Amino acid sequence: MKKTLYYKDFCKTEDHGYNLARAMQACRREGAGRLVLEPGLYEIRADRCEERTLCISNHGQNGLKRVALLIEDMQDFELDLGGATLCVFGEITPIVVRNSDRITIKNGTLQNPETMFMQARVVAHGENSVDLSPEFGAEQFTVMRRELVIRHAYSAMLTHVSTNIEFNGESGEMEPGTSDHTMGLWSHMNVDRLENGNYRVFGVTRKPPIGNVLIINASRRFGAGIFCENSRDILVQNFTVNSCFGMGFVAQMCENIHLDGFSTRREGGRLYTANADATHFVNCTGEVLVENGVFEGQLDDALNIHGMYTRITGRTGNELFVKEMHNEAKGIRIFRAGDRIRALDPESLIPYAEKTIAEVEYLNQDTVRLVLTEPCEDIAVGDDIENISRSASLVFRKNVVRNNRARGMLLASTAPMLIEDCYFHTGGCSIKFESDGAYWFESGGTTDVTIRGCHFDRCKHADKWGDAVIDMAPRRKVVENAYFHGTVRVVDNTFDMLIEKAVNFNNVESAIFEGNTVHPAEGLPTAVELCHVKEATVQDGIAII
Amino acid sequence: MKKTLYYKDFCKTEDHGYNLARAMQACRREGAGRLVLEPGLYEIRADRCEERTLCISNHGQNGLKRVALLIEDMQDFELDLGGATLCVFGEITPIVVRNSDRITIKNGTLQNPETMFMQARVVAHGENSVDLSPEFGAEQFTVMRRELVIRHAYSAMLTHVSTNIEFNGESGEMEPGTSDHTMGLWSHMNVDRLENGNYRVFGVTRKPPIGNVLIINASRRFGAGIFCENSRDILVQNFTVNSCFGMGFVAQMCENIHLDGFSTRREGGRLYTANADATHFVNCTGEVLVENGVFEGQLDDALNIHGMYTRITGRTGNELFVKEMHNEAKGIRIFRAGDRIRALDPESLIPYAEKTIAEVEYLNQDTVRLVLTEPCEDIAVGDDIENISRSASLVFRKNVVRNNRARGMLLASTAPMLIEDCYFHTGGCSIKFESDGAYWFESGGTTDVTIRGCHFDRCKHADKWGDAVIDMAPRRKVVENAYFHGTVRVVDNTFDMLIEKAVNFNNVESAIFEGNTVHPAEGLPTAVELCHVKEATVQDGIAII
Repeated sequence: MKKTLYYKDFCKTEDHGYNLARAMQACRREGAGRLVLEPGLYEIRADRCEERTLCISNHGQNGLKRVALLIEDMQDFELDLGGATLCVFGEITPIVVRNSDRITIKNGTLQNPETMFMQARVVAHGENSVDLSPEFGAEQFTVMRRELVIRHAYSAMLTHVSTNIEFNGESGEMEPGTSDHTMGLWSHMNVDRLENGNYRVFGVTRKPPIGNVLIINASRRFGAGIFCENSRDILVQNFTVNSCFGMGFVAQMCENIHLDGFSTRREGGRLYTANADATHFVNCTGEVLVENGVFEGQLDDALNIHGMYTRITGRTGNELFVKEMHNEAKGIRIFRAGDRIRALDPESLIPYAEKTIAEVEYLNQDTVRLVLTEPCEDIAVGDDIENISRSASLVFRKNVVRNNRARGMLLASTAPMLIEDCYFHTGGCSIKFESDGAYWFESGGTTDVTIRGCHFDRCKHADKWGDAVIDMAPRRKVVENAYFHGTVRVVDNTFDMLIEKAVNFNNVESAIFEGNTVHPAEGLPTAVELCHVKEATVQDGIAII
Repeated sequence: MKKTLYYKDFCKTEDHGYNLARAMQACRREGAGRLVLEPGLYEIRADRCEERTLCISNHGQNGLKRVALLIEDMQDFELDLGGATLCVFGEITPIVVRNSDRITIKNGTLQNPETMFMQARVVAHGENSVDLSPEFGAEQFTVMRRELVIRHAYSAMLTHVSTNIEFNGESGEMEPGTSDHTMGLWSHMNVDRLENGNYRVFGVTRKPPIGNVLIINASRRFGAGIFCENSRDILVQNFTVNSCFGMGFVAQMCENIHLDGFSTRREGGRLYTANADATHFVNCTGEVLVENGVFEGQLDDALNIHGMYTRITGRTGNELFVKEMHNEAKGIRIFRAGDRIRALDPESLIPYAEKTIAEVEYLNQDTVRLVLTEPCEDIAVGDDIENISRSASLVFRKNVVRNNRARGMLLASTAPMLIEDCYFHTGGCSIKFESDGAYWFESGGTTDVTIRGCHFDRCKHADKWGDAVIDMAPRRKVVENAYFHGTVRVVDNTFDMLIEKAVNFNNVESAIFEGNTVHPAEGLPTAVELCHVKEATVQDGIAII
């Protein structure tokens, strides 16, 4: 029987960063089975936290990272926060799981009052200006050359605002008809700090109604909420992220992840939660099961599951040099000896060769040298490589997704995926089949997707992010008789429509839209779009375009 | 007899970054005694270089760094570049020595065409503007919001210009009377890119003469030229840095370093060399010997030798928490068990307690936990700690220092230092006794310094950086009968004076100025200033103020 340690026994200094580090070090050293916290608010500053070099996918700021609770090289361990709230300040990733198996994390809440965004309420309109009243501090921002910027603590470099999005002050939903740049491109606007602490923004192209709330985001992600890599059998249960520096939960190269009651919840008047996705899975395997969660206020999707395409930069004999391409996703180390890979045209993403990896050598965070079991003259430099041994099946059920920026979910996994009994109220499309071999490099094509029993409630009220409630991104190039997606079933759902298209089936072998209850938008028929689809079944009463 | 490997045997691909990595890996694996290159220009890009997490002192960008030639965990190894020029592009540190003993590096040249600065010639004056013609590319710069910035490759953050300095287009020396912001504060100016590729800068407070050359520096240091840490008995011989991303040579926590004919030399019309100091030594031990070098065009001092003060942030029993304070010098790991430390008031820097370290624990790049061999109630939280077991003696002889930004040398080592038979022609003071316990945190007080046989040729022609040819920074607080510096001898030198003060002795126990040949500035007597000096010997004919 493994030991249980109690955090209260480690509370020997006033610095919870240090005390938590000591507690986790004791757990690792003693092979403890459990660490239990007591309810309460624990404020954690970076000064005495543990530190590791981390490459967190889609965060783009690889390097030395502070960690409050480090689960590393552990097996059969449970972190029971006992109802505690961990309040970290600034660039700290509260919980990291590395190279560990059978890990449970439960009964906790994460907060971070010093993120990369400012929540500000519209309080006045001028002739060419809007006055914003910052809420919840936002002291990390400063005005330089009439521009809002954040000075990075360690590098002395500056981060600029990239997006300004708008929530309705009463409903809390994304203001209908708006998107990433609600007042205009931030780089075209000038900002003055007023004596009363408000900001006056000049050069706006739209004046949001007084009382609406803007989230002004400098959007660099120096840390996540919970970050897992190279680990297996992870359960996160009854866990809430109120606010965090990056994404809420990120797992890369993990096997079997179960989020049960993991939520991103708005708290205390804050309309944001995570900076970007609530949950994000990269080249995981086994099953990803996400259930009983509420995802709101995240500044991107509730879930994104994908692999990574890499670009072939060199080839000799059995050897390929491939590069992790997107600057936000370097050093993820997605290959293992024995993995099966496919080569594909970056524009069609239709594979043309399949090989096995004999040996992997990571040269640095950009470039990997792959030795294959056989020659690879049939693979062209400049094309992409996909790792097909690293795809997880997905079950996403009984979740609520609402009032966040962008879409509900991004799906890109070659293993079966099931979305059922969920509620979606999203500004963009609810579910997007995304994949791209030339910019984001997020792979890959789906084979078997079922979406059933869900309620799509007035999705796509914002001005961007897809043009159907369930949307599939087109490929740059299409190959006759070859399909990027396999079977996609949209069955037994309820659609409350604001727009015409319920589903845009694109590049799909078998498209099924049946048994759905559809309430069309006023004066608009509801349609399903079929584009490069081999076979389709569409219920009566739905237009096909 | 250890083996010699030849780089030509590793030139199997067109990528020298990869080939050099392979060659060094073979040397490490096979315990080779020597790697020899052939003459030639080797272009090295980051894609396939090796990578390590490095914390380079005074560079301030800790994290994953590309390295072209990595000497790690090696003994008795010689890297003979055989006259080769290594031309790295962008964020690469060409040579790194870690945890290695008895290492020789010789017969090479370093270049980097993609640094953080732009060389630009003044080509026209407008009413309120100056037109600059960039030389040598400078494609890394872009204009955003009428400001020149560099977008960082990995982080997507922006670096702003911090200084603009001016060299005389004919003499190549710093333009007399100018300093860091020759046209004004860059943040107050606006920049337009003209159709002919020139930049028009508006809002200048000074218009440099047409034909003069500006170095516009975004000044973040993502890599160095040669970086050494935790190593012993290093010899660098017949080695030239033409240009590099950060400092030319940096050593931290090393013992016995000999630079023989190590130079920073301007090349092909470029007026800059290193971005900051030519050579920099942090908490080294044994002897630092620098001889037969020419140091020109570096954007800071030719040499800086110092330790690091750390700030005490906590204390319990025998235990101190101390913090590495300056953001450009974190994670340097200057303490070892057995080291003697002193506690001191950050304003006077006069020590009041001395202890021995029993145990060292680095919590992260900021904070260190020190366990002492005895209680430390006599040490106050908020004061500074100095490591007096980590000081190197210095011999700096037969070197030429000229036409660089700032000063010639910064001296802060408690071991004996000798500067002899050198030539200085510097815009600022030639030699500065610098140390500071509240901003830069560079320790420490000197005990025995001799400056002899040198020629100080019209130093201090720029507008900043000291007010004597040999200058000592005052302490914020002075303690009666206690002196920050011990004996300082300035003897048998030649001074060609442009200003009044030859030496400003400040906070010195024994000050000696004797046997010097002094050519006063026209119409100005030559003086020595004595401030908080216990005893002084000053030659006849020199005014004392």
